[in-house]
Amino acid sequence: MNTVVVGAGVIGLATAWEALRRGLTVTVLDPAPASKASHVSAGMLPAVNEQLYDQPELLRLCLDSRARYPSFVAALEEFAPAGFRRDGVLDAAFDEEGLRALARQRAFQEAHGIRTERLSPEDCAKLQPAFAPTVGGLFSPDEGAVDPRALTSALLTAVEALGGTVLHRAVARVDDHAVVLDDTSRVPFDRLVLAAGCWTHRIAGLPAGAVPEIRPVKGEILRLHSDPPLLDVTARALVRGSSLYLVPRLDGELVVGATYQERGYDETVTADATRSLLTRAAEVIPGVGALRFAEVSAGLRPGSPDDLPLIGPTAVPDVYLAAGHFRMGVQLAPVTAAAVVAHLTDTAPPEAAAPFTPRRLA
Amino acid sequence: MNTVVVGAGVIGLATAWEALRRGLTVTVLDPAPASKASHVSAGMLPAVNEQLYDQPELLRLCLDSRARYPSFVAALEEFAPAGFRRDGVLDAAFDEEGLRALARQRAFQEAHGIRTERLSPEDCAKLQPAFAPTVGGLFSPDEGAVDPRALTSALLTAVEALGGTVLHRAVARVDDHAVVLDDTSRVPFDRLVLAAGCWTHRIAGLPAGAVPEIRPVKGEILRLHSDPPLLDVTARALVRGSSLYLVPRLDGELVVGATYQERGYDETVTADATRSLLTRAAEVIPGVGALRFAEVSAGLRPGSPDDLPLIGPTAVPDVYLAAGHFRMGVQLAPVTAAAVVAHLTDTAPPEAAAPFTPRRLA
Repeated sequence: MNTVVVGAGVIGLATAWEALRRGLTVTVLDPAPASKASHVSAGMLPAVNEQLYDQPELLRLCLDSRARYPSFVAALEEFAPAGFRRDGVLDAAFDEEGLRALARQRAFQEAHGIRTERLSPEDCAKLQPAFAPTVGGLFSPDEGAVDPRALTSALLTAVEALGGTVLHRAVARVDDHAVVLDDTSRVPFDRLVLAAGCWTHRIAGLPAGAVPEIRPVKGEILRLHSDPPLLDVTARALVRGSSLYLVPRLDGELVVGATYQERGYDETVTADATRSLLTRAAEVIPGVGALRFAEVSAGLRPGSPDDLPLIGPTAVPDVYLAAGHFRMGVQLAPVTAAAVVAHLTDTAPPEAAAPFTPRRLA
Repeated sequence: MNTVVVGAGVIGLATAWEALRRGLTVTVLDPAPASKASHVSAGMLPAVNEQLYDQPELLRLCLDSRARYPSFVAALEEFAPAGFRRDGVLDAAFDEEGLRALARQRAFQEAHGIRTERLSPEDCAKLQPAFAPTVGGLFSPDEGAVDPRALTSALLTAVEALGGTVLHRAVARVDDHAVVLDDTSRVPFDRLVLAAGCWTHRIAGLPAGAVPEIRPVKGEILRLHSDPPLLDVTARALVRGSSLYLVPRLDGELVVGATYQERGYDETVTADATRSLLTRAAEVIPGVGALRFAEVSAGLRPGSPDDLPLIGPTAVPDVYLAAGHFRMGVQLAPVTAAAVVAHLTDTAPPEAAAPFTPRRLA
């Protein structure tokens, strides 16, 4: 069966790879594979975030994807390294408000069987000596991070190694069972997966409403560098009610994120966002100022109407969605790929994915 | 006569071009032309800075070069645009200390016949509406700026158009009347000009002390962007005893500089410097945060033992220096080129350049 995937971010590529592993014929279309939100993402893989507290179905989806990650990466790393680490995530509080947030997080994690260690300020200092003094912390030893640039690069390698085709072209429109490209050539499909992030609903040729509007939520993110790495462990710093994430890589890169802004399809990195990230980082890591300034970049997170992923068939026969993952595309790639490919092959998708059918918005 | 110039920054290139115009045969050697301090420089061309108050000879050199700039650029722009503007420089004070500095600057400029207009806070706001409230200012209508990237690019074009050779190679050593390159090939010369900035004294094969040590003084500089430009006029902002320069270009680029640090040959852009420049810019231009963050880069200013330029013959026959211009390479390029080429052609150099003979340090 001939499957076309529109969009070569982490969701589209994971779906394409999974489809190839299940024996489908796959063509991926993207003018610039792995260059948008997935390229900018920090790749933190925490067990929970505050969005999950009142979203039990989303929590189930996250835990399902979390369970799949090790085998997903192990299979992928037969092709290329993915920068996966599961050596723990530190949540550190720098004020009382942060401490209260951690108490809630700890109770929530424990209620769901996620290993959790409460840390004193001294424990935090021992675990992460580069941090400014904390008022306490939480260590989740089974969590970690992945390097989205390595991950998408490995997925591209794997897709091509398994005989998939990646065309670096933009889609003009869908026309019945073919995708028309910007050079007017046609790519026929039996089944079509739309995984183009916040550009998904702008693909022409589908009935109005078949794809819900997926709004862009801009995020700016900073990359610093030192050799040796300044931090050893993936961390979130809770300061004044907001959470700064700090994702160190073994090569000395330190990713610091992120900002949130809804201002349309604007991918401009601003002076203010850069200053804000640098200032917030310096607040929690006094020595960060000496690090090399490597990069600041912006990505557009895909936000569906209810901020939840859209995974599964649309009202249009043979057209599927894998989009709207907001901040969790990297986290949810394994379960999304499994669910979409189950639909493509007419087998049973993971139960956890069922609530995320696009039909819920119809 | 066969002249070799080592170093293709603004000084080396201006010298090479001037030599070609005077009929010499010229080869320029640089592994990466126009990529170091000249590439990073803001290109502000103010009439004076505080270094000149007690340096009458340096002032004379600056004024000589300032007088040459319009014809220098006019001749150069027969080849390519140089981004020169002489539509005034605004010095704006944001505190009482700044106001005192401006009073001194005004007296100094008037004493030397440099046109100067005193500005009220209201005048400053009218001239530069994007500024935060000032306590007063000074406008020097005959000063301006040049775009060092355009300038060096135009010089490279002009050098090649006039038959000069630019070899993208590093120098291994000087061996009598030849320069030995890193690939062991030899470039013979009748006369040699060393214009390699803070790397000049590290060229091997010359007697000890023939070239004074030229230490690197690191400067980090920020480039923002907006369309249309946020500022109309080249400016310096005096805040808390330090001067931030703000150089707008017609294409919407806004250059903000700079830091000063002596830490060897370290060209790393740090998180701290980036944050400091962004913070200082936001202090004087409230709207700057919305600008696109385009670039932050570092260069090494060449500081001679007395912080003054080295222009003229060394103790080694046929070996000349054009180096050590510290913060003023772009400003002093025209007079330096004229002086060095006068030496090369055994004609009389500009009188203003005489005190800057390298022999003063012998």
